[in-house]
Amino acid sequence: MAAIPAAPILTLPPAAVPGDSLAHVDTPSLVLDLDAFESNLRAMQAWADRHGVNLRPHGKAHKCPEVARRQIALGARGICCQKVSEALPFVEAGIDDIHISNEVVGPAKLALLAQLARVARVSVCVDDAGNLVDISAAMVAAQAQVEVLVEVNVGQGRCGVSDAALVLALAQQAQTLPGVSFGGLQAYHGSVQHVRSHGERAAEAARAAQAAADYANHLRAAGIACDRITGAGTGSAEFDAASGVYTELQAGSYAFMDGDYGANDWSDALAFRNSLFLLTTVMSVPAADRAIVDAGLKSTTVECGLPRIAESVGLQYTAANDEHGVLKTPQAVSAMERSDAKSASDGAYSQGSGVRLGDKLRLIPSHVDPTFNLHDQLVTYRNGVVEGVWDIAARGLSR
Amino acid sequence: MAAIPAAPILTLPPAAVPGDSLAHVDTPSLVLDLDAFESNLRAMQAWADRHGVNLRPHGKAHKCPEVARRQIALGARGICCQKVSEALPFVEAGIDDIHISNEVVGPAKLALLAQLARVARVSVCVDDAGNLVDISAAMVAAQAQVEVLVEVNVGQGRCGVSDAALVLALAQQAQTLPGVSFGGLQAYHGSVQHVRSHGERAAEAARAAQAAADYANHLRAAGIACDRITGAGTGSAEFDAASGVYTELQAGSYAFMDGDYGANDWSDALAFRNSLFLLTTVMSVPAADRAIVDAGLKSTTVECGLPRIAESVGLQYTAANDEHGVLKTPQAVSAMERSDAKSASDGAYSQGSGVRLGDKLRLIPSHVDPTFNLHDQLVTYRNGVVEGVWDIAARGLSR
Repeated sequence: MAAIPAAPILTLPPAAVPGDSLAHVDTPSLVLDLDAFESNLRAMQAWADRHGVNLRPHGKAHKCPEVARRQIALGARGICCQKVSEALPFVEAGIDDIHISNEVVGPAKLALLAQLARVARVSVCVDDAGNLVDISAAMVAAQAQVEVLVEVNVGQGRCGVSDAALVLALAQQAQTLPGVSFGGLQAYHGSVQHVRSHGERAAEAARAAQAAADYANHLRAAGIACDRITGAGTGSAEFDAASGVYTELQAGSYAFMDGDYGANDWSDALAFRNSLFLLTTVMSVPAADRAIVDAGLKSTTVECGLPRIAESVGLQYTAANDEHGVLKTPQAVSAMERSDAKSASDGAYSQGSGVRLGDKLRLIPSHVDPTFNLHDQLVTYRNGVVEGVWDIAARGLSR
Repeated sequence: MAAIPAAPILTLPPAAVPGDSLAHVDTPSLVLDLDAFESNLRAMQAWADRHGVNLRPHGKAHKCPEVARRQIALGARGICCQKVSEALPFVEAGIDDIHISNEVVGPAKLALLAQLARVARVSVCVDDAGNLVDISAAMVAAQAQVEVLVEVNVGQGRCGVSDAALVLALAQQAQTLPGVSFGGLQAYHGSVQHVRSHGERAAEAARAAQAAADYANHLRAAGIACDRITGAGTGSAEFDAASGVYTELQAGSYAFMDGDYGANDWSDALAFRNSLFLLTTVMSVPAADRAIVDAGLKSTTVECGLPRIAESVGLQYTAANDEHGVLKTPQAVSAMERSDAKSASDGAYSQGSGVRLGDKLRLIPSHVDPTFNLHDQLVTYRNGVVEGVWDIAARGLSR
């Protein structure tokens, strides 16, 4: 072959620029319908305001400082982050009130937490006495101060203390150690969020809220104020806001929605619209009953199910490979499901797919949080026209 | 709260530096055992050499130019990429022979393909006559030249032509259009790779190779040379190399292995070692039978199953949340599986978890390709000591 110049630099053009029509956005790209997004932000903030609780949306859902800025502009009180490193781009964007809704363990992470606490108002969860001593020492070493919330297990069975006496002991320890102050409790119940039935979800949320109230009352009986009880997700926020127990809502997905939350039953009181889509291109139409798109496992995660196609094109997304999505007609899917000896892709079905090579489709991801974590940018649009491209600046920051 | 300086810049320290012990690497981090990695590279290259076929490892598996450099140094003939944008960091790193093992559709992507073809030797797949015309036009516009391989469906039912007459028509069309040359066939069968039984996998691979040979012979009967037949993955490379049909192996995962490939039966002739691990920290030990680590869905994907713990610590990874992994003792898992009324996390089990807060564990990801795509860096080590940190420079490049 001919001699090649060493290490040429090729530049990847932007996926979109403001003014582009959505049909011209390069794919796969995460795209945000601003009308639906803004409607969701307003709905949750109004619900929090109506019940006199703080909304502290979760940054782990989107990892995008521009989203957080807009949530705060509407009234949100800071944000949550799930990891210390995740908070850095938000602080850099000027957000100065951050709750790390998680335990932070080990000298590297605690040193970073202390640096964070020097430049922002920061709270963090604890569920271990030794860890609390380590947090205190890291804060003292950096001349920083952090608020600690004791995480309590209200049914999820993940992190958190399950014993009221231990909750009290940690709160008392936090009151005596330097560099830390006791702020209250975190009582998050992840499994409640996706209980499908509205009534059952309300009942589960009520049980979790009662468990949180019991821990708080145990502290109060010992003379310890417990002014902050943080928790709630998109699925339980309706109930938690009205519980009289929670003072702060950590919901994140409500701004976007996804397939998993879409499968919940919602009330008229509080419901949200799909604002987030994954734009994809039809890159192969090899049979009448099959089409292939350019978005697979590296563009959307599938632990909560396969993505759904937003447009009505007579196709279902039936399999995700690394960089391919396989779309089939309902007839082909039925044939697969019957385990018919007849091939599902022999082109014998009369009804074709109705898409052509190069067509663009919007997919609804099944799980918003890890899907955002696959993308560096979010293309925003209104009425089919691109308005901006926002950096998903905390993408990949899991330390 | 006190006034906060606007937009402070906090720097995230590196997860590791050369000379660190593995126990000091910050987590979650992808780590590579260099001894096992190098052994895998040598084994596959030797197998290809022995059978007189080219090894063109797949860059989509790792997205890391330094890995590709080492594969090429041992004898690999360039690399494969699955997307055009993915190729850019490899070209920038000096790799000048790239096969895009996929269809490329739409003006933005074809313009980028043409730029790529101006600075490297590039081949690309086609399965559509209109797309082939578009490729030709993009090459002519950029004064570039690309080799096209007709993708044939040898059983996977994804992209690719299923009709010998259409294969011939595309090959003839490629011979007449400017800016393109006909190179041969791509005959990849993804589903064969994970057939567990060695014998059944051999039989499936033989059927796919025969289908590829039939297409090639149809071309040859029409007087068209078909010198290049590319395909094969880690699971079928043993058979495809020896098939006498394939001239080029596209395997990628062999360098690392994962839980899904680990579940295959392997022969003595060609087998690989786990070289890739996800280092994680125990961040909560809230019960005697449960521990929580800091690596979840944002650090490892689970579409091929949950990760496995490399060390023997009497725990299983039983659930992945966004940023948490839930580890349980086998007793707790059995209790869950029995759907016992008794809580699996009530601490009543005599045998505890055997891990402490801050302990580090290595997880074996179940699916290497999308897991690499979650990380920006790969920490390499030998005998428990860090040797380097390699950029996963094509991470997120799915356009």
